[in-house]
Amino acid sequence: MDRKKAVILLSGGLDSATALAVAADKGFACYALSFAYGQRHDVEIRAAEKIAAAFTCIEHRTVNIDLSQWGGSALTSADIDVPKDRTDGEMAEGIPVTYVPARNTVFLSFAVAWAEVIGAKDIFIGVNSIDYSGYPDCRPEFIRAFEECARLGTKAADEGWTFTIHTPLQKLGKEEIIKLGVSLGVNYSMTHSCYDPSPDGLACGHCDSCELRRKGFTEAGIPDPTIYA
Amino acid sequence: MDRKKAVILLSGGLDSATALAVAADKGFACYALSFAYGQRHDVEIRAAEKIAAAFTCIEHRTVNIDLSQWGGSALTSADIDVPKDRTDGEMAEGIPVTYVPARNTVFLSFAVAWAEVIGAKDIFIGVNSIDYSGYPDCRPEFIRAFEECARLGTKAADEGWTFTIHTPLQKLGKEEIIKLGVSLGVNYSMTHSCYDPSPDGLACGHCDSCELRRKGFTEAGIPDPTIYA
Repeated sequence: MDRKKAVILLSGGLDSATALAVAADKGFACYALSFAYGQRHDVEIRAAEKIAAAFTCIEHRTVNIDLSQWGGSALTSADIDVPKDRTDGEMAEGIPVTYVPARNTVFLSFAVAWAEVIGAKDIFIGVNSIDYSGYPDCRPEFIRAFEECARLGTKAADEGWTFTIHTPLQKLGKEEIIKLGVSLGVNYSMTHSCYDPSPDGLACGHCDSCELRRKGFTEAGIPDPTIYA
Repeated sequence: MDRKKAVILLSGGLDSATALAVAADKGFACYALSFAYGQRHDVEIRAAEKIAAAFTCIEHRTVNIDLSQWGGSALTSADIDVPKDRTDGEMAEGIPVTYVPARNTVFLSFAVAWAEVIGAKDIFIGVNSIDYSGYPDCRPEFIRAFEECARLGTKAADEGWTFTIHTPLQKLGKEEIIKLGVSLGVNYSMTHSCYDPSPDGLACGHCDSCELRRKGFTEAGIPDPTIYA
C-alpha cells in the first residue's frame, strides 16, 4: 500500500526538524516545504536542505516569497534590531518585534496548496506554546481555525474530508522536544535557530531563539552542538 | 482625520476592479495587491496596474509567488487545457480544472500580512457566489473562516480587534456587478477576465470567464468593451 503523504513545514530550525522526524516516524511519505521569505537568517534554508535529505523526504521545495518587501519585523527588516539577552520576564511580555506578520498563515496556505495538488491530507508544523516567543500564529486556536479554513477553501469540503494540521510539539517544552528529536534520530548540529547569525552563519547566542535553544539543551542534559559566534 | 486603510485584492479582472471601486467609494485609503503567480493569463497584471492607477490607490503591489511550480490547475499548468464553450449545465457541475488549489487562501494570507504591517483592518475581495466558476474558496463560509483565522493568527486577537474581509459582490449576479461598477466609474475596458488569452493579450471569448463576462454585459444592457480574438 502506498504510504500516506504529508507536507511538513521545515524552516531548518530545531522545532521543524523534530516535527519532520515525527512525521517520518509515523510512516508518512514526507514532502518538506521551506520558504526563502527575505529572512535575516536565510542560512536556515541550507539547514532545511540538509535535514530534508537526512530524513529522505520524497521532495523538498523552497518557495520564494519576499515578505521583506513590506517588512514589519526584525526578521524581515534591517531597520528593526533583533533583541538580545532578554530575561524570561521580558520574553513573556507580549508579542516581540521578531514576530513576522501573518507568517504562519502564509506558510500554511502554501502547504495546503501543495498538499491539495499532491493529494496529501496531512500537514505538519512545529509550533509550540511552551518555550516559544509569544507569536500569535503558534497558538492552538489559530491552528484549529486554519484547519477549518483549509477544509472550506479547497475541494476537501465538497469531497467530504478534511485536512489535519499536526502540531506534535504544541505542548512540549524545548527540552522535551530535543529529547524526542534525539530519540527519533535528529542530528541537531544540522539545524539552525538563530535569528541574527554572523555573516558566516554562526549563531549569535543572545537572541530569544538562541536563548531558548541553549536552555533546552541544558535542561535536556544533552550537549548543545551549536557553534556560537 | 486620516482615512481608514484597506487592502484590496486586485486580479485585474471585472470583479476585483468593482470591489476596488466599492472600497474607494466607501472612502478607504486603498492599497491594491496583485499576484504574479505563474498564471497563464498574466496579462491581467497589466490590467491591475491600470485599474489601481485609475482609482488612485495609495500603493499597488504585485507579489511574485510561483504557484506554477506545482501546477494542479489549467491556469498554472500548460499540461491542463482551459475548457471552452461549456454550457451553463456543465459549468454548474462541481469544481472545474481552472480552480487553482488554495489560491484565495494564499492571496488572503498575503493581504492580511500586508494589512497588519500598514495598520489596515479591512480587506476587500471580489468573490461572488452567483455567476462564478464554482470555486470553493469563493464561498461565504470560507471567507468567514478565514476572517477568524486572520484574527487569531495576528496581533488582532491580543489587541482585541478583528480584520473585516469585505465581499461586496458576494450576492450579486454578473450584470449587477457591472451596473454597480459603471455607477462607480469603473472603466471595464481596462479589465481582463479571460483565462486563456491570445499571445497579444486578447480575450478568447470561449472560456468560462469570458462566457460569464459576456453574458453579464448582455444582461446589463451595457456594451461589452472587451476585444475578443
